[in-house]
Amino acid sequence: MTSISLLDSLPDADLITPPDVSASTLRQALKDMSLVVGPENVEVCTRETMKPDKDGHYYNLPKEHDLFYVLEKDVFLASAVVRPGSTEDVSAIVKLANEFLTPLWPVSMGRNLGYGGSAPRLRGSIVLDVGARMNKVLQVNDRDCTCLLEPGVSYFALYDYLQKNGFQHLWIDNPDLGGGSVVGNALDRGAGYTPYGEHFSMHCGMEVVLPTGEVMRTGMGALPNNNTWQTFQYGFGPYPDGIFTQSNYGVVTKMGFWLMPDPGGYQSYLFSFQNDTDLPAIVEAIRVLRIGMVIQNAPTIRSTLLDAAVYAQKSQYTDSKEVLTDQEIDAIARKIGVGRWNIYGAMYGPKAMRELQWEVLKNTFMQIPGARYEFPEPLTDGAQETVLHMREETLKGIPNTYELGWLDWTCKRGSLLGFSPISPATGIDANKQYEMVKRRLGEFGFDYLGTFVVGWRELHHIVCLTFDKSDPGSRKRAHRCIELLIDDAAAEGYGEYRTHLCYMDQIASVYNWNNGASLRFNEQLKDSLDPNGILAPGKSGVWPKRLRGRGFEIRRTQAYGIKENKAAGGSDSGTLIGQLPASL
Amino acid sequence: MTSISLLDSLPDADLITPPDVSASTLRQALKDMSLVVGPENVEVCTRETMKPDKDGHYYNLPKEHDLFYVLEKDVFLASAVVRPGSTEDVSAIVKLANEFLTPLWPVSMGRNLGYGGSAPRLRGSIVLDVGARMNKVLQVNDRDCTCLLEPGVSYFALYDYLQKNGFQHLWIDNPDLGGGSVVGNALDRGAGYTPYGEHFSMHCGMEVVLPTGEVMRTGMGALPNNNTWQTFQYGFGPYPDGIFTQSNYGVVTKMGFWLMPDPGGYQSYLFSFQNDTDLPAIVEAIRVLRIGMVIQNAPTIRSTLLDAAVYAQKSQYTDSKEVLTDQEIDAIARKIGVGRWNIYGAMYGPKAMRELQWEVLKNTFMQIPGARYEFPEPLTDGAQETVLHMREETLKGIPNTYELGWLDWTCKRGSLLGFSPISPATGIDANKQYEMVKRRLGEFGFDYLGTFVVGWRELHHIVCLTFDKSDPGSRKRAHRCIELLIDDAAAEGYGEYRTHLCYMDQIASVYNWNNGASLRFNEQLKDSLDPNGILAPGKSGVWPKRLRGRGFEIRRTQAYGIKENKAAGGSDSGTLIGQLPASL
Repeated sequence: MTSISLLDSLPDADLITPPDVSASTLRQALKDMSLVVGPENVEVCTRETMKPDKDGHYYNLPKEHDLFYVLEKDVFLASAVVRPGSTEDVSAIVKLANEFLTPLWPVSMGRNLGYGGSAPRLRGSIVLDVGARMNKVLQVNDRDCTCLLEPGVSYFALYDYLQKNGFQHLWIDNPDLGGGSVVGNALDRGAGYTPYGEHFSMHCGMEVVLPTGEVMRTGMGALPNNNTWQTFQYGFGPYPDGIFTQSNYGVVTKMGFWLMPDPGGYQSYLFSFQNDTDLPAIVEAIRVLRIGMVIQNAPTIRSTLLDAAVYAQKSQYTDSKEVLTDQEIDAIARKIGVGRWNIYGAMYGPKAMRELQWEVLKNTFMQIPGARYEFPEPLTDGAQETVLHMREETLKGIPNTYELGWLDWTCKRGSLLGFSPISPATGIDANKQYEMVKRRLGEFGFDYLGTFVVGWRELHHIVCLTFDKSDPGSRKRAHRCIELLIDDAAAEGYGEYRTHLCYMDQIASVYNWNNGASLRFNEQLKDSLDPNGILAPGKSGVWPKRLRGRGFEIRRTQAYGIKENKAAGGSDSGTLIGQLPASL
Repeated sequence: MTSISLLDSLPDADLITPPDVSASTLRQALKDMSLVVGPENVEVCTRETMKPDKDGHYYNLPKEHDLFYVLEKDVFLASAVVRPGSTEDVSAIVKLANEFLTPLWPVSMGRNLGYGGSAPRLRGSIVLDVGARMNKVLQVNDRDCTCLLEPGVSYFALYDYLQKNGFQHLWIDNPDLGGGSVVGNALDRGAGYTPYGEHFSMHCGMEVVLPTGEVMRTGMGALPNNNTWQTFQYGFGPYPDGIFTQSNYGVVTKMGFWLMPDPGGYQSYLFSFQNDTDLPAIVEAIRVLRIGMVIQNAPTIRSTLLDAAVYAQKSQYTDSKEVLTDQEIDAIARKIGVGRWNIYGAMYGPKAMRELQWEVLKNTFMQIPGARYEFPEPLTDGAQETVLHMREETLKGIPNTYELGWLDWTCKRGSLLGFSPISPATGIDANKQYEMVKRRLGEFGFDYLGTFVVGWRELHHIVCLTFDKSDPGSRKRAHRCIELLIDDAAAEGYGEYRTHLCYMDQIASVYNWNNGASLRFNEQLKDSLDPNGILAPGKSGVWPKRLRGRGFEIRRTQAYGIKENKAAGGSDSGTLIGQLPASL
C-alpha cells in the first residue's frame, strides 16, 4: 500500500483502475475522499506492490486482499482503501463514489477466511474499511441484555469490553475464530455455538448508509426518541433488514444484538463414534434432540482429520502425500483419542436441568455401538489442550483462534477454501453429502476435513479444503474441485449458504428456480437502490446494470482458463493462464 | 355483492371505481379477470349494497369490508372481489391489473379484527381473496416438523388437518382467535403464545407473486429440486422475506412454517395480583424470567376488565354507563375471581423440568404482596369455563374463538379498534403506557381493556377499544381517541407494531427518523417493484408514485373532518362529516 501523499508520483499504469474509471478520475476521487477522512486514512494499492518476488511468491499481501487467494493474487485486487471514522464519513464517501463511479467494497474487520478475506469482488474497487476506525461498543444494556455496535468491534473486543465493564454475566456468541467483526459476521449470516448462535436472528436494529448516501435506521430506529431499537426487531411496515445481509444494498454502520444472560450453569461434552459409517445414525439421533430443544444450541459433528489438523500438520502423522485411507484415518483417530465422528456440544442451565438433559443425551447417543463420551478435564501443568478444551471455550462464547491450527494441514502458511452446502438433518442426506464431497476431494488429492454444524432443522456442512497458495498447481486443483462440487451439489438439490468471491456468480446461477427469478429480483432492487452501481458490484452474484453482462461474472472457469471472465483479471488476465501448468 | 353476470346491467354510478379507472375500464378488467378465475369467482361491489337502511344502520356487510368500520362504512370500500385458485391465477390477475390500473388488495382469510378486516385501504381496489380457494395444506413433514401452506389455511384448518392425519404430536401456534390465516397472520407479523409464538421468525420459505406477475421463491426455494425449502430460512444472497411482511411488494401464495413437536408435557397457570399498582413489579419480574428463558413463551399480563368482558357485557356487572372507577373494577375482579393484573402462562416440557421452572416462577411472583396462583381445574358438568381454561387451550396451540366475547363489552355486536404500541419490558415503561392510555381512553369515555404480551425483550401492549359502530358518536370518539394516542405514544418514543387501515399513514408519518428515511426507502422499493402502483396502495402508509400526494393519505383527520383526505371517501366524502354530530 502506498500513502495518498505519493499519489501524484505514481505512474498511471501502476494504478488499479476499476471499469469506466480513468487513472485521473481515480486520483481525483481518492483526493476528494481524503478530504473527508483525512489523508492518513486513504491508501493506494499499486501494481508495484503486487509483483511476485523472484521465486514467484507474494508475501507482502496487504490486509485488503484475499490472504488465501485461489485464483491469481491480482484477480481480486483493490485500487485503494479508505477508512471512514463515522456514519457521516461513510455517507460522504458513498456520495463521492457516485460522482466518480468508483465502486466501493465495504468490509469490517478483514477476516472472512476461506471466503475471500477483505478483497473486493470487482478488481479496482475501493475497499471501504468501516472496521478500522468505527470500532466502538456504543451501548450495552444490562437490563435488556442488548448491545449496539459499530462494525469494527471484534468478538475479542466485545468480550473484553463486557469483562472489563461489569457485564460478566452477559455472554457473547462467537464463531470458530474470534477475530472477526460481530456486525460483519451477522451480515454474512454466520453462526456460532451457544443458544444465540444464529447471528442474524439475534440482531436487533440497523443503521444503514444506502447506496445514494442516505442514512436510514430500521425497526424501531425509524421512530425518533424510541427506547426499543435494540429490543424489538421489526418496527412498522416492511421489514428490510434481511436484504442488507449477503448483499450490496447498503453499508451497515451500527447494528444491535441480543446477548444471552449467564444461563446459570454450563457443561460441554464430547461424544465420539468409532466408525466412519456411524454418521447417518448420529444425524438421525441429533435431529430429534435438536428440534425438540433437548439440545439448545448448534453442536458440531466433526470428522477425525479436522481434529487432527488442529493439533499438527499431516506430515507429523504420516509420510504419505496421498489422500489418507480409512485405515490411516483410523490410526490417527486412535492416536489423538477421538472418533471418526465427534459431537462437540454443551448444556446450558442450572445443574438440575442439565442432569435431565444429560440423561436423554447419554441414553440416545450411547446406543450407537462403540460410542464414548467425555467431559473436559481440568488441565494439569504442561498438558496439551484437547479439542474438547478448545470447543468448551467456543461453546461458551469465549472467543479464541485455536481453529487456525488446521489451516496448516498440508503445508505451513496453508490456505483455506470454504465449501458450505446446506443439508437436511437426515442420515441419508448427511451421508450423501459426505460421500460426494469425499469422492471429489479425493479425486483432486485432498483429504476430507469437515464438520456438520447442526442448525435447528438443517446442517451447515462446512468443508475445509486446505491448499498451498504458493503452488499454482495446488491452487488450480482446489479451485476446480470446489467448482465441480458446487455443480455436484446442485444436481442433488443442495445449495451453499455462503461462498468465496470466485464462486459467487456460479452459485447465484444455480439458485435459478423459474428462470432465475430470485437473481432477477435482486438485480431489480440493485438497480433501484444503486442506480450508478457503486456498492460492492458482484457481491453474491448481484451486479448493477452498468456492469452486468460485460464479462465480469465468473460463472464457471473451466479448469482455470477463466473463459467467461474476460475482465476479472483486468488487463493482466492473459498472463493468468500462462503462469499455470497446462494440466492438473 | 353482485354477480359478475349482472355487471352490464349495473349503472356506471353504482360501481365503486378506483382512481384513474373509469367504469367501463373497471368492467373490462373484471370481465378479463373472470376469464382467468371463472365468472363464479368474481363479484362486484356496488353503492346500492352499501346503502344504510332507514335507521341509518348497515347490516348487509360483505366479508370484503371492515366489519368494525370506524370511519363511515363506505370509506374503505372495494369495487369487487376476485378469488384466484392457483399461483398461476394470481399471476394472471396481477398482470391484468397492471394493464387496467385497477389496484388489488390481497387478503387471505378475511379476519384482521380491529385492524380493518379485509377492506382495502384505497377505495375502489379489487379485493384479491387468495384465501377463498387456495386453502390447501400442501405438505406436512413429520421428520423435520415443518409444513407448507396456502394462504387460505386457517389455524382451525391446520389444527384439524394435523389431528386427522396422524400428526397429533405436532403443535401449532395460534393467536387469540383461530379463524385467521396462518400465512396472513405471519405476514402481518402477528404473534401467538407457545414457544413458537413469534410467527414471522418461525416461517421458512415463501412463494411470492411480484407486482409484475413474476413468481419467485425465497430461501432454498430458489434452488431447483432442493429438499431444504422448509428447513433453512435463508438461501444465498440477500434475504428478502421481511420486505413481504406488512407490505405491498408481493402476494404470498405459499409459505412454510416450523411446527413445535409435542414438548413432552404442559402446564398452564395463572398468577393474579390484587392491586392496580402491581404492574411495575410484575413487569420487572417477568422480564428477567423471560430473557432468561425460564419462561419459554409469551405470557400475557391481562387487565381485569379484559377477563370480565370475556364472560359478560359491562351492563351485567354494573348500571354505570361511565368509565369504571378503581373501586368498581376491584369489585368486578373479586366477583370473577381474578386480580387487577393476571399473568396467564404455561410451562412446556417433562414434569421434572416443569417442576424446576415452577419453583422459580412461584418464588418470583409470590413475592408480590397479595399474589395468588392457580392451575386450571378439570371442569365439572355445567361449570362455566374460566379465562384460565380458555387460555390453557390457546397457550397449547389449540385454536378457539373465546376472545370474541369481549367485543360486546359496551354493546351487542360491539366493534373493536386495536391500538398496539411496543414498550420496553420495564415497570416504568409499562406503567407509563398504562397510565397514558387509561387517561386518554377515560377522556373519551372508554374503559381500559388491555393486555401486555411479553415478547423476548419487549411488550406488545394490546389495547382493546370496543365501541358501537352503529352510533356515529361512538365511532367518532373511538377514532379520535386512537389518533391522539398514536401521537401521545410517539411523543414518548413509543411506536405501534400494527394498525387499523385508517391510521397507517399517521403511524408511517411518526416513524420519521432522518426526514422519513424509512418511508422514503419503502416508497423507492415500491416504485421499483410496482411501477404501475397496482398492489395494495397505501398498505402500511406506502403509496406508489402514481397515487402519492394526491390526497389519499390520512395523516390526521382532525376530529373526523378528514381534512387531509379528500379522496378517502371518494365522491361521498362530503357527506361523511355531515352525518356526524358536530361536537363530541
